[in-house]
Amino acid sequence: MELSEAVANRRSIRKYKKNPIPDALVSEILNSGMAAPSAGNLQSRHFYVIRDAAFKKNLAAAALDQTFIAEASVVMVVCTDHKIRAEYGDRGEELYAIMDCAASIQNMLLTAHSLGLGACWVGAYDEKAVTKILNTPDRFRPVAIIPLGYPAESPKPPSKVAVDDACDFL
Amino acid sequence: MELSEAVANRRSIRKYKKNPIPDALVSEILNSGMAAPSAGNLQSRHFYVIRDAAFKKNLAAAALDQTFIAEASVVMVVCTDHKIRAEYGDRGEELYAIMDCAASIQNMLLTAHSLGLGACWVGAYDEKAVTKILNTPDRFRPVAIIPLGYPAESPKPPSKVAVDDACDFL
Repeated sequence: MELSEAVANRRSIRKYKKNPIPDALVSEILNSGMAAPSAGNLQSRHFYVIRDAAFKKNLAAAALDQTFIAEASVVMVVCTDHKIRAEYGDRGEELYAIMDCAASIQNMLLTAHSLGLGACWVGAYDEKAVTKILNTPDRFRPVAIIPLGYPAESPKPPSKVAVDDACDFL
Repeated sequence: MELSEAVANRRSIRKYKKNPIPDALVSEILNSGMAAPSAGNLQSRHFYVIRDAAFKKNLAAAALDQTFIAEASVVMVVCTDHKIRAEYGDRGEELYAIMDCAASIQNMLLTAHSLGLGACWVGAYDEKAVTKILNTPDRFRPVAIIPLGYPAESPKPPSKVAVDDACDFL
């Protein structure tokens, strides 16, 4: 798929068909996430890739009962890794690593769309509950939950602010 | 350009030819940034698009004398907008708005590459100095500086961690 088409037509998808996503597509999505830039190329991020039904159900509960998460074929949880502190301190952990994760996620959302899949960027959840469910090492902080599946809805494009409101030209 | 090609072949470019970037391409890049998802579709982000030589020179100085910034045809400064606090509080400002900016930036880096341009994601700069140079409203926080130009270098791909080190499968 053309990049411009993927950028323009990707939507947040919260309803999924039952079909499982083949491993080859999950790999392609993950590889696109790992290809995103990162501060100092430290790649201070970690990806949990979850097919297990019990984990998905518990994550949906930790995400304020957003039950659609449990219906997804695959759920990713993307974490910052505080190893970045050694190089960049607070700014590394509180800015760079978060942006590095988001760059990975945006690549993955575009790639998922290009493969005929749908995904949703979920930010509202209890972080401590998620770390407990996944039994993450202390150095990881979960910064997004991304359910992925074959789309069972076609949402309209959301409204966007005008260029003149979003931008200043100097 | 195919999405997969843009994802795989985009590099950080720090050397630029003198040619100016036409306005139409700058618009296409900006539109791709504004098409990125955002928490609650609040689009709590702002884009400064800078061609003025004095602004670029001052930004390069504020970015710890990364002089290549001043050599770029266009420099963008991407800011979070703390209007997001009204909906999402601290988590909105310190996580969602930062990720929303990063998603926009990743779209713009991919689009720039697809148009034959190069860009670099700069995170190291004095935030207060940047807000002073741009005379930003108090509600904006600059979270990245993105110089853009026609590439005058072809860097090799950076090394990437192995999938098994970056991922857990559950």
